[in-house]
Formats: sequence, structure tokens, C-alpha cells
Amino acid sequence: MASYEKLELEPFFQTIEELKPKFIQRLQKAISIPSVSSDESLRPKVVEMANFLVSELKELGFTDIQLKELGTQPPPVADSTLQLPPIVLGRFGTDPAKKTVLVYGHYDVQPALKEDGWSTEPFEMHYDQQKDILYGRGSTDDKGPVVGWLNVIEAHNKLGWELPVNLVVCFEGMEESGSLGLDDLVAKEAKQYFKGVDQVTISDNYWLGTKKPVLTYGLRGCNYYQIIIEGPGADLHSGIFGGIVAEPMTDLIKVMSTLVDTDGKILIPGVDAMVAPLTEKEDKLYDAIDFSVEELNAASGSKTSLHDNKKDILKHRWRYPSLSLHGIEGAFSGSGAKTVIPAKVVGKFSIRTVPDIVSGKLDELVFKHITEEFNKLKSPNKFKVELIHDGNYWVSDPFNESFTAAAKATQDVWGVVPDFTREGGSIPITLTFEKELGVDVLLLPMGRGDDGAHSINEKLDVSNYINGCKTLGGYLHYFGKS
Amino acid sequence: MASYEKLELEPFFQTIEELKPKFIQRLQKAISIPSVSSDESLRPKVVEMANFLVSELKELGFTDIQLKELGTQPPPVADSTLQLPPIVLGRFGTDPAKKTVLVYGHYDVQPALKEDGWSTEPFEMHYDQQKDILYGRGSTDDKGPVVGWLNVIEAHNKLGWELPVNLVVCFEGMEESGSLGLDDLVAKEAKQYFKGVDQVTISDNYWLGTKKPVLTYGLRGCNYYQIIIEGPGADLHSGIFGGIVAEPMTDLIKVMSTLVDTDGKILIPGVDAMVAPLTEKEDKLYDAIDFSVEELNAASGSKTSLHDNKKDILKHRWRYPSLSLHGIEGAFSGSGAKTVIPAKVVGKFSIRTVPDIVSGKLDELVFKHITEEFNKLKSPNKFKVELIHDGNYWVSDPFNESFTAAAKATQDVWGVVPDFTREGGSIPITLTFEKELGVDVLLLPMGRGDDGAHSINEKLDVSNYINGCKTLGGYLHYFGKS
Repeated sequence: MASYEKLELEPFFQTIEELKPKFIQRLQKAISIPSVSSDESLRPKVVEMANFLVSELKELGFTDIQLKELGTQPPPVADSTLQLPPIVLGRFGTDPAKKTVLVYGHYDVQPALKEDGWSTEPFEMHYDQQKDILYGRGSTDDKGPVVGWLNVIEAHNKLGWELPVNLVVCFEGMEESGSLGLDDLVAKEAKQYFKGVDQVTISDNYWLGTKKPVLTYGLRGCNYYQIIIEGPGADLHSGIFGGIVAEPMTDLIKVMSTLVDTDGKILIPGVDAMVAPLTEKEDKLYDAIDFSVEELNAASGSKTSLHDNKKDILKHRWRYPSLSLHGIEGAFSGSGAKTVIPAKVVGKFSIRTVPDIVSGKLDELVFKHITEEFNKLKSPNKFKVELIHDGNYWVSDPFNESFTAAAKATQDVWGVVPDFTREGGSIPITLTFEKELGVDVLLLPMGRGDDGAHSINEKLDVSNYINGCKTLGGYLHYFGKS
Repeated sequence: MASYEKLELEPFFQTIEELKPKFIQRLQKAISIPSVSSDESLRPKVVEMANFLVSELKELGFTDIQLKELGTQPPPVADSTLQLPPIVLGRFGTDPAKKTVLVYGHYDVQPALKEDGWSTEPFEMHYDQQKDILYGRGSTDDKGPVVGWLNVIEAHNKLGWELPVNLVVCFEGMEESGSLGLDDLVAKEAKQYFKGVDQVTISDNYWLGTKKPVLTYGLRGCNYYQIIIEGPGADLHSGIFGGIVAEPMTDLIKVMSTLVDTDGKILIPGVDAMVAPLTEKEDKLYDAIDFSVEELNAASGSKTSLHDNKKDILKHRWRYPSLSLHGIEGAFSGSGAKTVIPAKVVGKFSIRTVPDIVSGKLDELVFKHITEEFNKLKSPNKFKVELIHDGNYWVSDPFNESFTAAAKATQDVWGVVPDFTREGGSIPITLTFEKELGVDVLLLPMGRGDDGAHSINEKLDVSNYINGCKTLGGYLHYFGKS
């Protein structure tokens, strides 16, 4: 049956190939808008990106297009009147006889500067024709997949084909900054704009490696914290004040050093105890997955793996928590030497969460540990620890209708059965959709494990982009018939 | 005799007052050039500042004006062809019957951005007429004193007075970045351009507090280090890689946490043992100095003093070493949340040195300790620790001719006997001049202890600027006659 259906899909696949130049151009336009949600000064660009999507949706024949405003951004924020970027909603088809698929993606991106070490301008797409790779911030995370859905519609329009499902799109502009405002919107629209949705599909993650497509049924959550330590009224000269005032950096570094060990062990008491025990059945699942230490090393560009075998790597990426120290705001961060005693420093770290860590309980443990460690220092400096944002972990059933449809499409396009995987990253909205709409969520990745999301030289292979569009469309066909 | 001489100086003091508007304008011009030596992209502005000084010197009648080029800046540096800013040399008078005073100052400044928290643009001088204060980067460190010397000449020219000494000026543009190239130049010119110099005067430090002028006979040195830890080939996404790779930030924070305690105690073994023991005689010297915990708190804008009495504060500022953690290059340093695993992080710290710490021996202890601490981590990351720059401590005789002359001038202008103090900051060139020229060095400060050198809202009180010019000129008169 699969081969019969595959034949049926051939004209669609062919049309995607024909439209390739136009699809690359569409991604180029999207990348050229620096929609960095964490940079308040770039907020107008995030809004510009929303408007770009609206005009694309209009042109493709979407209806009921709405820009949902989310109000001002809550603290901590420099400009207290800063507006959150809008959520873009749209429909393609409203046939009650068809299933309705809600497609979620985000149009904001991580920060990027050429000076960070990019080979080319991050916000000008670079097409390396020899390698057949598209470089640019957002290429894989998440502009490639977002415009991928639009490409699927364009191919159908060109063919004069009816879409086998009703499609609802929901594109947000704050995913890289905690999806502020989205939870409330989803809750509010669950019985309104999103009424009748049968399934939610998200294409915002990656293959595990670089060769084999995957479908993803689990994600880690993420609780992001900051430790604020404040002393002098302004930055001081270390010659004049060194040795006679308590320096906030000294305290912050001490406290941050008590959070995690070089081997990745989280040192905050009680966190590991909340992690669900590994069953024998689950342990065996990792045997089949196509992955290796070498693939991790290739993706990280180093030999810094903490584990010497595939199974431990996968477990620590998927089912164990991790703690990363991201940086310090307020300290000297330039090149060269500056003899400053920073007056106020803010340490940033996050914990990736897994079953059965309870987010609120984790916050308590974090606050308690850090407060105790700071109090041990007996410092006259002022101290505060706070959660910047959180998002829960998620685990689904990889054998339900949508996963089965996506597996068929993947096999048609790539010629292999995908691996069923979990992911280390967080897409907090996954859980919100599942809870508020009461439907299954499918994670259907487009890019590869070495795409460099959140890193310099972020890329998307043209083959992943084009075959990804085919897979997204094929999935809609199989799911529409299931 | 002092009062007779003071009468003699009255016309000079009066002329300084008359020229006040012009002198403020001169400082304004100097502040408007952002001559930040640590920022490679601003190097042309540092050169522009050198050219500004040259044109001022010409207009005032200086002769033999030279711009001494110092070649390319040695690593670590981003642009390997970057030229060091030139040293500005000039003479005023060459009468063999007179003494010759060499005046040193620096025309580069610390970095400053409005966003750092400045109330006004750092590179546009703001004259608060109500408080009678001049705000701007470099106002007190060290553009105020540098143009102060020019003002002294201008007042003499206006009066038609002969300068009682020959003056040689030596203005450098790399003081805030380790005075690269200056030592070699001083050594080279000691028997050439600087031949016949009888005394060196430096106005590049501050009063201890805000009320009483001081003369300074001692300085701490400064050894500035960086710890480089490098793992992945590029920054990574903490969701995908958290828990499975060794993170450079984790290692760096661990190592940095072993350097100093909240109470200021240096934890590197062997450093304290090198410090000269405190004699009873020296201990008594601190009794007389006008200072208090309250003055420290006012200057730091906080109640974060590590010591509860004047004497301990002064000892820890002047005669004990201190270690400050300045910041981290390569980690996330912005506001908000970024879920990045930084690939390469560079921790910056410096140690203020005092008698009898031997700089090379200190480097050895630092490298040994940090290497041991890193090795304890058993991390697969790459590690390096290096000295960025060093400068030795300095102690002089506060009862020699030049200190006596400066004390008289100070008393004439301010009506009080100055305190004889040491300083916590470093002016490495002090020692170089003393050694290479074989003459005494005097530190004659212009600004107050709360001027905020290296901090936001750096300022110079107009009274300190104008009375400072009088003091510099008065000093030249008394020294010329001594």
C-alpha cells in the first residue's frame, strides 16, 4: 500500500523540486529579517517578520489571518512598555469532512553577530552551491520549517490539488525567549480559533545525527535562572578599591561554582532524586538508535564527550537533567584587559528537565541551595536569585496515528524507516498544545543534528529543506487518510 | 618664606582663574575624542587625540615636538597589524641654568558606553554648573591633569612670565592597556630626548578622600592574567548538548572560584608569604591620615567595606595585595536568557602587587595554582593561563626636594598641609622613569577619591581642575628654586 500511495504523491514531490529556486528565495527573505526576540532593540524586526509571514499567507490563499497581540512584555525587561511580538494565525481550508492539523512554528531567532565568528553575515543567507547548504541565522531554527509549510501549500496550489486536511498555522515570535504570552493565547483560543483541531505538528527540532531522519516523541524542559549580586553603587577601579570592598564577582563565581561539576553532575541537592528511574525496557530502546560517540564529536567539533558510548550519551541527552552556565551580565566581557570591579553582576544558568521533575519543586531546590551557598559567604553584598522562564518536559506515544503517518511519509521521501527519538532541547509549547487542545502532538524535524541552531554558521542542507517540504506534505496526505 | 613666595605666585593664580572658561573648553575638546586604547576599533581615535595634543603644544610654543611610533601591538590582539598609538614628546625651554622637569600623563582612557549606566554621554563633557563638576570619560583619568600642564604654560604665556624650569612632556596612549611600548621608549630616550631631566612628575592618581589634598609616594603594581578554556568547535545549544559534552564555562567558573574569598583573602598558595612584614613604625604612619570607613562607603556608593576601621582599609589599599575577578570573554553577557554553551571562554583577573612580591615569581605561583586546579577537574577541554600585562609596585621618599616643593604649592593653594599617602592603583611607568632616568618621581594628584576613574559618570570637580592647575604651576616654581 505504501508504494501505491507513494506513486500518488510523486507529482507533489516533483512540483516541490521544480519550485526549489523559489523556495530558496523565500527562505532567503525570511533570514534577511533579524527577528531576534531577546534583543529589545530588534523588536521592530520581529514584528516585521510577522508581517512578512502575513503577506505570504495572503498570497497563498490562507483565510481568517490574524495578528494576535500579547500586550507588554513582563519584567525583567529594560523598556517596561515593550510590546510582545504578535502571534500569526491563519487557515487553509475549512472542510468539516477533513481532519484539521494545527502547525506551529516560530519566526524569532537567537542573537547573532558576524563578530561571534560567523564566516558570512548571519542575516544574509549564504548559499554554498558546492556543498548545497544554506547558511544563515534561523535557516534551520525555525525559519526553514516555517516557510516549509508555506512551500507545501504553494506546491498544492501549483498542482491544482486540494489539501487533504484543513490546515491551521500558529507562528510565534518569542520562542527563543520563553514563549512569553503563548500559553495564555493557546488556552484562550483552544475552543475558539483552534476549535476542531485534531492534531498538532511542530517542526522545530533536528535529526539526532546527520544521516538518518527521525521522529521525536519526547523533549526535555528548561528552567532558566539568574543570580543577581550587587555591591557598589557603580563599577569601581580595582587598584583603588581592590582588597577593601566585597566584590560581587567574587561572590557570584563562588556561588556558580557550586551548581555543576565538570562531568555534568548537578550539585543542587534533591534534583537527581526527582528523576524517574530507568527501567530495563527503556534501557533496551537505546540499543536500536543510529548514533555514535563520533557523531557527537563531529557535531560538537571537539572530543569533549562526557560519555564513551552511544547509550549513555542518548540517556544524558534525553532522560537525565543537565545544568549549563551560560554567562554573566554586567562583568567585563570584551577582549583585552579592563581593571574594573563590576558593581552588579547577573549569573545566568539553566537546567534541562525530564520526567518526573516538578518545575516548581525544582525552583524551590535551586533557590534554597543558592541562598544557602550565598549565605555561607557572609558577604555584605545584596543577593537575589530568580527564575527567568520555565517550560516543562514532554513525552508522547510514538505509535499513534500521526507518528505512523509521518513515518510513512519519511520512508517515501528518504527511503528509510525513521528512528524514534527524544530530544534534549525544549519546545515548551508542545506540552501546552497537548494539554489545552487535548490532542496528540507530533515533532517532525527538518534539519540535521549538526545544523548549529543557537551557534555560529547555522545552516540547513538544501536536501533537508527540499525533502523536508516533501515529508511535511506527505505527512498531511497520510494523516488526512488515516 | 612660604607666604612671601605665595604673594609672588598670586598673579599666576589670578591668571588661572581668568582663563577658567578657556581651560574648561580645552578639557571638553579632549573628552570629546573617545581615545579608548583597549578597543582596537577605536585606535584611530587614540591617534586623533595624540594629534590634538601636538597642535595644542605647537600653539603654546613647545619645541622639538615629536610623535614617537612604537610599532605593531604584540599579541594577544585581533588585528595583528594594529599599530600602537604614538608617544607625544615636547619641550618648553632649554635653559641649562634651570632644572628640567619631565611631566608624564596619558591621553588614552578606559572604555565607556552610555548603556553602562552613564547619566550623560561619556564622550561629551557635561558641565553641571550647580555642582560645579565636569563629567566625562577621562575628565580625571587622565585628560584633566594632562591639559592641566598645558594650562600652566598658557597662564605663564599670558603673564609674560618665564617658566622657572625647563619642561619636557611625555604623553602616552596605552596606559589603560599596560603601557605597551613605553618602557622601551623611556629606556631608549633616557640618554637622548630625556637627557638632563632632573625630576619626573606624574599627575595620574587621586586624593584619598574628597576633602584633603595628598601627595603620593607609593603605588601597588598590577599583574593581569587570563584563563582560556576551550571545548567545542563553536557555541552549542544547551538543550542538544547539555549533559553530554564538557562545558568550558563549568571548568572556568570552578577554577576562578579557587582564586579569592569574599573577605578578599587570596587563595593562591605562596602569595601572602612574599608580602613585606608590617613594622611598628609603618603601622603608626596610618594613624595620622585623614580617612574613614564612611568616606570609603561614600566613594563605593555602598556599605560593602571589608574592614571596619581606617587603618585596616588603608593597609589593604596600599600595602597588601588584592585579587579582582573582572569578567569573562566569550560567555553570554547580554540581558535576558540565551541557552548557549559557550565554546571558548576567557576569564580575566588581576592581582595588585606590593613590596616584596616579585612579579615573575608571582606569575609562577599563579600558573602553578591554576594549572593544578584545572587538572583536578579532569576535563577534556583545552586550557591555557597567561599574563596579559604586568607592572611593578613603587615606593619613594616623601621628604625629598620634589615632595617638599609640591607640599608648599599645595599649602599655598588649598591652605592645608597635604597627607602623604600611597595608592592602591598602578602606574607602572613610575618605576620605569625612576630606574631608567635615575631621578626621583613625584605623584601629584589633581582629582578626588570619588571621581569614578574606570567607572560610570567619571568626573572632575571644577575646583580640583582649577586649583590643580595652580598647584602644578606652584610646584614648578618651588622646585625650580630648590
